[in-house]
Amino acid sequence: MRLMRLANVNTVSIGIFSWAELEPSEGFYTFDWLDRVFEKLAANGRRIILATPSGGKPNWLAARYPEVRRVNEQGMREPQRGRHNHCITSPIYRKKITEINTLLAQRYGAHPALLLWHIGNEFTGYCYCDLCMAAFRLWLRNKYGTLEKLNHAWWATFWSHRFTSWDQVNCIDPNIHGMILDWRRFMTSQVIDFIAVECEPLRRHAPHIPATTNFIGLIDFDEAYDYSKIAQSMDIASWDSYPFWHNRSPSEGGDASVACDTAFVHDLTRAMKPDRSWLLMETTPSAQNWTPVSRLRRPGMLRLNGLQAVAHGSDSVLYFQWRKSRGGCEKFHGAVVDHAGHEHTRVFQDVTALGAELGKLSSVAGSLIRPRAAVIYDWENRWAIDAALGPRNVNKDYLPTCRAHYREFWRRGVAVDVISSIANLEPYRIVVAPMLYMLRPGVAENIARFVNAGGTFVATYMTGIADENDLCFLGGFPGPLKEVLGIWVEETDVLNDFDRQTVVAGENALELGLSGHYAAQHYVDLLHLRGSEALAYYSDEFVAGRPAVTRNRYGGGIAYYVASRNDAHFLSDFLGGVIREAGIKSAAGLPAFHPLPHGLSMQVRTDGKTDTLFVMNFSDVERQAPIGKGFLNVNGETVPEVVKISGYTTCIFFRTGDTV
Amino acid sequence: MRLMRLANVNTVSIGIFSWAELEPSEGFYTFDWLDRVFEKLAANGRRIILATPSGGKPNWLAARYPEVRRVNEQGMREPQRGRHNHCITSPIYRKKITEINTLLAQRYGAHPALLLWHIGNEFTGYCYCDLCMAAFRLWLRNKYGTLEKLNHAWWATFWSHRFTSWDQVNCIDPNIHGMILDWRRFMTSQVIDFIAVECEPLRRHAPHIPATTNFIGLIDFDEAYDYSKIAQSMDIASWDSYPFWHNRSPSEGGDASVACDTAFVHDLTRAMKPDRSWLLMETTPSAQNWTPVSRLRRPGMLRLNGLQAVAHGSDSVLYFQWRKSRGGCEKFHGAVVDHAGHEHTRVFQDVTALGAELGKLSSVAGSLIRPRAAVIYDWENRWAIDAALGPRNVNKDYLPTCRAHYREFWRRGVAVDVISSIANLEPYRIVVAPMLYMLRPGVAENIARFVNAGGTFVATYMTGIADENDLCFLGGFPGPLKEVLGIWVEETDVLNDFDRQTVVAGENALELGLSGHYAAQHYVDLLHLRGSEALAYYSDEFVAGRPAVTRNRYGGGIAYYVASRNDAHFLSDFLGGVIREAGIKSAAGLPAFHPLPHGLSMQVRTDGKTDTLFVMNFSDVERQAPIGKGFLNVNGETVPEVVKISGYTTCIFFRTGDTV
Amino acid sequence: MRLMRLANVNTVSIGIFSWAELEPSEGFYTFDWLDRVFEKLAANGRRIILATPSGGKPNWLAARYPEVRRVNEQGMREPQRGRHNHCITSPIYRKKITEINTLLAQRYGAHPALLLWHIGNEFTGYCYCDLCMAAFRLWLRNKYGTLEKLNHAWWATFWSHRFTSWDQVNCIDPNIHGMILDWRRFMTSQVIDFIAVECEPLRRHAPHIPATTNFIGLIDFDEAYDYSKIAQSMDIASWDSYPFWHNRSPSEGGDASVACDTAFVHDLTRAMKPDRSWLLMETTPSAQNWTPVSRLRRPGMLRLNGLQAVAHGSDSVLYFQWRKSRGGCEKFHGAVVDHAGHEHTRVFQDVTALGAELGKLSSVAGSLIRPRAAVIYDWENRWAIDAALGPRNVNKDYLPTCRAHYREFWRRGVAVDVISSIANLEPYRIVVAPMLYMLRPGVAENIARFVNAGGTFVATYMTGIADENDLCFLGGFPGPLKEVLGIWVEETDVLNDFDRQTVVAGENALELGLSGHYAAQHYVDLLHLRGSEALAYYSDEFVAGRPAVTRNRYGGGIAYYVASRNDAHFLSDFLGGVIREAGIKSAAGLPAFHPLPHGLSMQVRTDGKTDTLFVMNFSDVERQAPIGKGFLNVNGETVPEVVKISGYTTCIFFRTGDTV
Repeated sequence: MRLMRLANVNTVSIGIFSWAELEPSEGFYTFDWLDRVFEKLAANGRRIILATPSGGKPNWLAARYPEVRRVNEQGMREPQRGRHNHCITSPIYRKKITEINTLLAQRYGAHPALLLWHIGNEFTGYCYCDLCMAAFRLWLRNKYGTLEKLNHAWWATFWSHRFTSWDQVNCIDPNIHGMILDWRRFMTSQVIDFIAVECEPLRRHAPHIPATTNFIGLIDFDEAYDYSKIAQSMDIASWDSYPFWHNRSPSEGGDASVACDTAFVHDLTRAMKPDRSWLLMETTPSAQNWTPVSRLRRPGMLRLNGLQAVAHGSDSVLYFQWRKSRGGCEKFHGAVVDHAGHEHTRVFQDVTALGAELGKLSSVAGSLIRPRAAVIYDWENRWAIDAALGPRNVNKDYLPTCRAHYREFWRRGVAVDVISSIANLEPYRIVVAPMLYMLRPGVAENIARFVNAGGTFVATYMTGIADENDLCFLGGFPGPLKEVLGIWVEETDVLNDFDRQTVVAGENALELGLSGHYAAQHYVDLLHLRGSEALAYYSDEFVAGRPAVTRNRYGGGIAYYVASRNDAHFLSDFLGGVIREAGIKSAAGLPAFHPLPHGLSMQVRTDGKTDTLFVMNFSDVERQAPIGKGFLNVNGETVPEVVKISGYTTCIFFRTGDTV
Repeated sequence: MRLMRLANVNTVSIGIFSWAELEPSEGFYTFDWLDRVFEKLAANGRRIILATPSGGKPNWLAARYPEVRRVNEQGMREPQRGRHNHCITSPIYRKKITEINTLLAQRYGAHPALLLWHIGNEFTGYCYCDLCMAAFRLWLRNKYGTLEKLNHAWWATFWSHRFTSWDQVNCIDPNIHGMILDWRRFMTSQVIDFIAVECEPLRRHAPHIPATTNFIGLIDFDEAYDYSKIAQSMDIASWDSYPFWHNRSPSEGGDASVACDTAFVHDLTRAMKPDRSWLLMETTPSAQNWTPVSRLRRPGMLRLNGLQAVAHGSDSVLYFQWRKSRGGCEKFHGAVVDHAGHEHTRVFQDVTALGAELGKLSSVAGSLIRPRAAVIYDWENRWAIDAALGPRNVNKDYLPTCRAHYREFWRRGVAVDVISSIANLEPYRIVVAPMLYMLRPGVAENIARFVNAGGTFVATYMTGIADENDLCFLGGFPGPLKEVLGIWVEETDVLNDFDRQTVVAGENALELGLSGHYAAQHYVDLLHLRGSEALAYYSDEFVAGRPAVTRNRYGGGIAYYVASRNDAHFLSDFLGGVIREAGIKSAAGLPAFHPLPHGLSMQVRTDGKTDTLFVMNFSDVERQAPIGKGFLNVNGETVPEVVKISGYTTCIFFRTGDTV
Repeated sequence: MRLMRLANVNTVSIGIFSWAELEPSEGFYTFDWLDRVFEKLAANGRRIILATPSGGKPNWLAARYPEVRRVNEQGMREPQRGRHNHCITSPIYRKKITEINTLLAQRYGAHPALLLWHIGNEFTGYCYCDLCMAAFRLWLRNKYGTLEKLNHAWWATFWSHRFTSWDQVNCIDPNIHGMILDWRRFMTSQVIDFIAVECEPLRRHAPHIPATTNFIGLIDFDEAYDYSKIAQSMDIASWDSYPFWHNRSPSEGGDASVACDTAFVHDLTRAMKPDRSWLLMETTPSAQNWTPVSRLRRPGMLRLNGLQAVAHGSDSVLYFQWRKSRGGCEKFHGAVVDHAGHEHTRVFQDVTALGAELGKLSSVAGSLIRPRAAVIYDWENRWAIDAALGPRNVNKDYLPTCRAHYREFWRRGVAVDVISSIANLEPYRIVVAPMLYMLRPGVAENIARFVNAGGTFVATYMTGIADENDLCFLGGFPGPLKEVLGIWVEETDVLNDFDRQTVVAGENALELGLSGHYAAQHYVDLLHLRGSEALAYYSDEFVAGRPAVTRNRYGGGIAYYVASRNDAHFLSDFLGGVIREAGIKSAAGLPAFHPLPHGLSMQVRTDGKTDTLFVMNFSDVERQAPIGKGFLNVNGETVPEVVKISGYTTCIFFRTGDTV
C-alpha cells in the first residue's frame, strides 16, 4: 500500500486467475483474503476493477469434469495446463462460473470501491468438442433452416460434400470456406453467449456497475473471434497493449512504425464504442517477457506509451503487473515493483511521474474523438482472404495493407476510425477500404449511399469478389461495387516477389498529387473502364497502357479504385491528395497534405470547451511539429506555431474557444 | 452449349466427384441430370469422357461406414473432408463403387458419345488402417513365404527387430528401409487392385470403351505410388499438367526451365505406353489457384502450353476447368468460362483459337514418337535414395539430377524417353541412368546386354549400391555393374555445400568434347580403375590425381562413369559429345552436338508419311531455329533452313517423303 | 578374426541390441552363438565388453506387453520401432531385463575375456505413460511431503493451478517451470533406478566386473537427463564421440572449432569421475551416416581423433562399427571393415596403424589429469534457462557461451575440467561460471568459500536469478552472489540481433590485459557497484558510463562479473589475463597468456613419473608449437623448444623427472 501510494496508482484490477484461491475445492469458498484486499485498497482510496475468474480453471474442476477442457482440431482433449482454454459451451463450466460470479456480485457488488467488472481474460481460441459441435449444428439449423440452403451457401456439391443430415457436420473442412466462416461466426457468437452467462448474476446483483472484457488487439492468429461484435455486448471497450518497442530496425521504420501499429488498435478499440472512452487495461511498465527479444523501455518511453493511449481516447493507463511473481512463466514480465521489492528503481520512478501527470489532465477524462476519416478493417473479410486459395497464397497481407493505408492518416496527425465493413459510414468524409474481398449484405449499398451523399471512397485490387458465404459474384468483379467504381476487372495477375510493374500517373492526376512513376508488386488487376476515368496506367509488359488507378464521380462523391499494390511513395501522394481534396485537417487544425516529420504523431481530445493536443515524438531525435496558433502549455503560456519536441517525448498543449 | 461451340471444345470430361449427386443417399440414385448432360453434349456433337466417382466420398458414406475413411500414420482415422482419401482396401468402399460403376456402365456404356472411362481421380496417398495392414501382411506372406526370408530382406536383426510372427507387422518403421520399400510397393499394388475392381463392371458392360486414370506427374511427395506400374493396367496413359509458368526468375532458368521440366513428365507419360498416344487430361487455361503465386498466362502461352503436350505425343488438350465454380476451394482456378459468365475474355478467345488450330492438325493424331535415347527415372530407386541415411542427407537431389541430364537432350531438340530401370532398353542407342542406387533383379544384366550389343551407357556416383531390398552389394561398388563399368568405388566423399572439387579433363577426352576445368559439388567418388580408362581427374586436396570420369569399352558398346556431381558446363560438353558419338540427330534431322538457342525446343511427330515439326520458343524474345531443308508451313510454302520464332510462340512445319 | 588381428584390435564391445537374438521368444534363450563369439575372441586374445540388451526391445515383447512401449507427450503410445524407447518404469520391462541380465551374468560373468559391463545403450528420452506419472507422483510426495510445499515450489497459484490432490499431477505443464525441472530430475532419477535394476544381477554374479553406460555427450536436445548424476552410479564414465569433422567452414572456425567442442565433452566426461580414466566407447573410423553431410576423414584425422580422446584422459579408442551391416538404417555408417569385405582400404590401414601406436603408449594407461581451472556447465541450469520466458527467447545460447569460455583455456593448452555447479571447487584456482542462472542450495556458499580461500571466480550476465525451483531471488540480483560479486543488477536489457553496445576498458583494466573497445550483443546488464570496482564501461545510448565489467576482492580471492555478452576479442583478452593472474601454465608448463597458433591444442597426461605431452594440429597446415625444454620424442631424442607440427597431425613427447 505504501508503494502504491508512492507510485500514484489509483485503480487496481484484481481477481484474474483467482478461482483456485476463491474456491479451493468444489463448493468451498474462501473470500476472506479478497475481503482484506478490498478493505485495504478502499482504505487507501484506490478504486477496484474486479475480474471474474473464468480465465483459468482450477485443477479440481479440470480433473472432475473433463468436459470443461477443450478438444483441439485433431480431436484430442487437452490436459489441464495453461489458461484461456476452457470449453465455452460446457454446461458445467457455465454453471460453475455462474455460481462463483453470483457470490462475487453479492459480496462485492455494492462495495463503494468497486468501479468495473472485468469478464474473464483475453478470450481466445476454439473448442472442437462434441458439445461445441452440437451447438454449432443448432446454430446452423437456426441460420439456414434447411440443408438445401446450407449446401448452397457452402457450395457443398464441390468434391461431393453435400450434407444430407445435420449430423454430418462434425468437423471443420478447410476446403469448405463457407463452413470456416460460419464456424468462426459461431465461435464469436458462442463467446458472446458465454459472456452473457457470466454477466447475468453481475447485472442482477450490481446493475449499476459496468462491465468490460480485455481484448488482445488484432488477435493476430488462427483461432480468432470478431471482437467488433463482442464489444457490442460490453459496456466499455478495453484492450491489453504490448507494443514491441525498440524491436524494429530503422529499415523497418523503427519505433515510429511500432507506434503507428499500436495507434491502429487504439483507434480500432475506440471505434467499437464511439460514444464512450475506452480503457487501456494492460500494458507493461518495463519489458515484456514473452517477446523474442524483450527490450527495456528507453527513458521517456513509458510516458510516451501511456500518453499515446490517452491521446487516442483511453481514460486509463493500467499496468500489468504491479509486482513480479517469484515463479511461473511470467516472472520476468515487467512490473511496477520488481523482485528487488522496493521503489528505488528506474521503472518505479517513471510510473510515479506519469501517475502524477495523469492526475492533472482533467480536461481529458471522458472527452471524445470524432474522426472524419475511416479505414475499414474487417475480421470476417480477413478470415475470407486468409481462407481463399488464389490468386496469391503468400504475402496476401490484408492486415499490413490496412495498416499501410492507416499510416498515411496517422503520420499527418489526422484522426481516423478503424471500423468494420458494416459500420455506419455517415460520420465520415473519407472511407478507405483496402482489399474488401467480401461484401456482406448491405455493404455495397451502404458504400453507394455514402458516395452518393458526397463521400470519398477508396477501394483497391481484391475488392468485391465474394459474398458473405464466400460465393463469388457472377457477372464481373468487383461485383455489386462495379457501378459505384465504374469499372470491370477482367483478370488479376499476381507478380512473383522478385517482379515489379510500373505505374505511370496521367496528366489528369496532377491536381490530386500523383506524378511520375511508381512501383507495383504482388497484385495487378487488368480492368476495363465502365464510366470511370483512368488516373494512372501500367507501362510494362503486355498490360502496358491499361488503367492502374481510376476515379468515378458518383452522385455527389468520388470513388477511387487502385488496381495494383503500389509502393509507399504512391500511397503518400495519393492519400495525401485525397485528404486535401476532402478538406480534412490535422489534430492541430492545419492542412494535412504533407506528412509530419518522421516519428511524430498528433492527436486531439475535446471535451467541448478545451482541445487537448498531444504531440508525440516516437523517434529518438528532436523533431519540429507544426501546431499553428492558439495553443498554451500546461503553465498557461502561449507556445510557438512550430514546437520542438525531444526524442521519445510527448508534449501536451491546450486550446480553448477564447485562445484562438 | 453455345459457349462450348464457340470455344471449339469437342470433348468433355464429366462425372468426377459426382457421387453425392448420383447417389444422394445409400441406394437411391439420380441419373436424370447426367442423362440430360449426355443428351445435350451428344446433340451438339461433343464426345464424353466419363469419370467414375471414387475420387470423393459422399458424406453419408463416410458417416455410416467409418472404415472408408483413411487412417494416418499416427493411427488416427481422418474425419470426412477433402478428397482422394478413401481407404483403398475397404471392402465396403469397393462394394459401393462397384455398384455405382455397374450402373454407370449399364446406363452409358453403349452411349455413342462415350469415348473413354476416367477411373477415379489423381490417385494418391497411403492408408494405415487395420484393413490395409492386414492386406499388407498377406502381400508379404505371398512375397516372402517365411519370416526367415522377410527378416533377411529387412535386415531385421539390426536394433533387435526380428519378426517372430506376421502380426508384428503393424506399423511402418522408418528405420527399416526394406519395409518402407515393400510398403510402397504394396500400396502401388493395392491401387492397381482397386482400379481393377473399378474397371471390372466397366469392362463387363462396355468392353469396347478404353479406360485411363489421370496421373499427377512425378507425384513429388511422400505418399507416392509407382505410376509406371499402374499405367500397365490402363489402356491409355494420361496426366494433369500444371506447369508453374512465369514463376521462375531468369537465374532459375525462367520459362525455359519450366518447359523442360514439363517435357520431362510428358516424355515419362508417353514412355509408359510407347505404342499409343497419351492424353493431356487437365491443364489450366489461365492461372492455377493453389500455387504460391498463380500468374496469368502471358499472351501466346496458352497455345504454347497446349501444343507442347501435342508435340510430345498427346492427342488431346483438355482443360480443367470449363467454368469456374462460385464457391469451394478451387473457385479461383482458371477456367474457360470465368465468373463473368461470357465469352468476351482474353482466356476464352485464346482457347477458341487453339481449338480451331488443333482441328486442322490431322497429320498428328495417333502418330508416334520413337526416341533413340532414354533417361532412367525410377520410382523405386527414388524411394530407396530418399530413405537412405548417408552419405548425404541434404541435397540428394535424385529428381533434379535426372532432369539435369534430360535437359541436355531437350535443349538440343533430341527426342528422349523417360523410363523405369526395368524397361526394355533395346530401342535405344543411349541410356543415361543418373544415380541408379538400386539395381533390381535383372537390371545389371539388362544393362550389360545393352552395352554389349553396341549401346552407350552413362552412370554416375551413387550407382549400384543396393539390391531391391536395399541390402548393400558386397565385394565392392558399383556392385553387379563393376565389370561393365570397369571400376571399383572404394569410398564416396561428400562435400559441404560451400565446398567444390575441381575436375580436369585428360587429353584423351578432347575428342569427346571435354576440355579444361569443371567444378564438382556434393558427391565425389574415390574409385580405382579396373579395366576402364580415365577421361578426367580431380585436382584438389588428397584426392588429386584420382579418376573423375571413366570410359569402358565393353563388347560393342561404351560405358561411362561420372564419379562426381559436376556443373552444367560439364554436363553439356559431356552429353553433347555422347550424343554426337552415338550419331543421334535433332527432331529436324540435324546434328545435335550444340544446344539450340536458350528457350527453344523442337519435337517431331511422324505418322509414317508426314513429319510434323513443332518448334517452340519458351523465351520472351525472338530466337532463330535451325531446321534444315524440306519443311513447309501450314500453307504449303517452303520455309528457310533457319527460321525466326517470336517469343512465346510455336511454329509448326511439315515434311513429307517427297519434300526432301 | 584374421582381420581383427591385422587391425590391432584388442577389445570388442558386443551384445548391444541382441535381445531378439538371445531370446527369440519369451523364455526361450539361444546363447550358443554368443558362446562361440566369446570363444573365438578369447582364443585370439581379445577382451570383451558385454552389453546388456536393453537398448532395443524384441518385437514379441513390444507386442505382448504394450506397457513397455513409451507414451509420448501427446499421450499416444508409440508403436514398436526404432530403439532406446522402452518405458523405464515398466515393471515388466524391468523383470524381463533382470531375467536376461541374470543369465548373461551367470554364463559370462566369470569368463576370463570379460572386461566390462556395458549397460543398455545411449540412454535418452522420456516416457509419459501412466506408470511413469504414478512414479513421478510418488517421487514428488517423497520430495515435498505436502501439497502445500509443492504448490509453493511450483508457484502454482499463478494461473489458478493450485494442486489440491496428488492425482492432479498427470501431465507436464510447460508454463510451470518448477514442474519441468522436477520432471527432468525425476526422469534422471528413474534412469538411475533402472540402471540399478540392470546392474543388480551383474553385481551379484560378477562382483569383480565394473560397469559403464555410454553417454551421448551433451545430449543436446529436449528429452535430456543429467548425465553428471547418472555417472555417479557407474564405475567408469564413457561416451560416444561423433565429431562433425570437416563440416565447418573457415568462418565457423573449421576443424579447430570442432576439436574444441569435442574436447569440451571429453573434459566433461573425465570430470564426472576425476579419479579414474574414462573410455571412448564409440567413434567412427570413417564417416558417420546420419549427419547432414557425412564427410570422409582426411588423411591423419582418424589418428588425430583417437589420440585427442587419449590426450584428454581416455584409456581406449573403440570404434563403432567393426563391419558395415548390409541393411538397416546404419548401413552407410563408417566401419573398420567395409562392404567390400577386405583389408585393402584406406580406412582399415589407418585403424591398423593407430592400433599399433596405442599398443606402445605404456606411460599413459591409467594416468590422470588434474586441471587447475574449471568451467561450470550444469544440466539443471541449462533446463532452467531453456524453460525461462524472457528477457530473451532467442539466442539464449547457454551451451555456446560455456564453450566460448572453455575455448580460451583449450586454445592456450591449459587443462580444464567441465563440472556441474554442485561439484567440489577445492582443486581449482579459477572457476568460470557462465550464465549461472540457477543457484542450487549450497552453490552460492560454495563459491563464496572458494573465493574467500583465494580462488578466482568469473560470473556473467544472467547469473543468480533463481533458486532450484526456478523461484526468483528477492532483494536484488544476482541473489546470494550479490556480496561475493559486490554488485546489484537492477535491470537487464537485451539487444536486437542487429544491435550492438560498446564496452570500453578502464585504465585500471590495463594490467589485466583489457584495453580499447569491445562489442557487446544480446545481453546488457544495468548494474550498481556495491563494493566492487568497475573495469570497463558501456559507451552507447542511455547506459553510457555504467559499469560493464566489475572486480571484487573478497577474502583472499577475486570475483569478476562480466555484465554483457562480449565479443571473442574481449573473451581472449579477459580470460588470458585471468589465467596469467592466477599463474596457470599450459600443458607444456609454459605461461599461457597468449593463445597457441590457430588449430593447435596441447594436453598432458602424467603417471607420476612421465609426462606424456600430446601436441595436436587440427588445421590443415603446418603450425609451430612452443613446448619448452626437456621433452623427448618416441625415439628418446630431444626435441626443440618450438616444434613444427604438420596439418592434421599429433606429436607425442615425453618428459620424465630427470629430463628437465
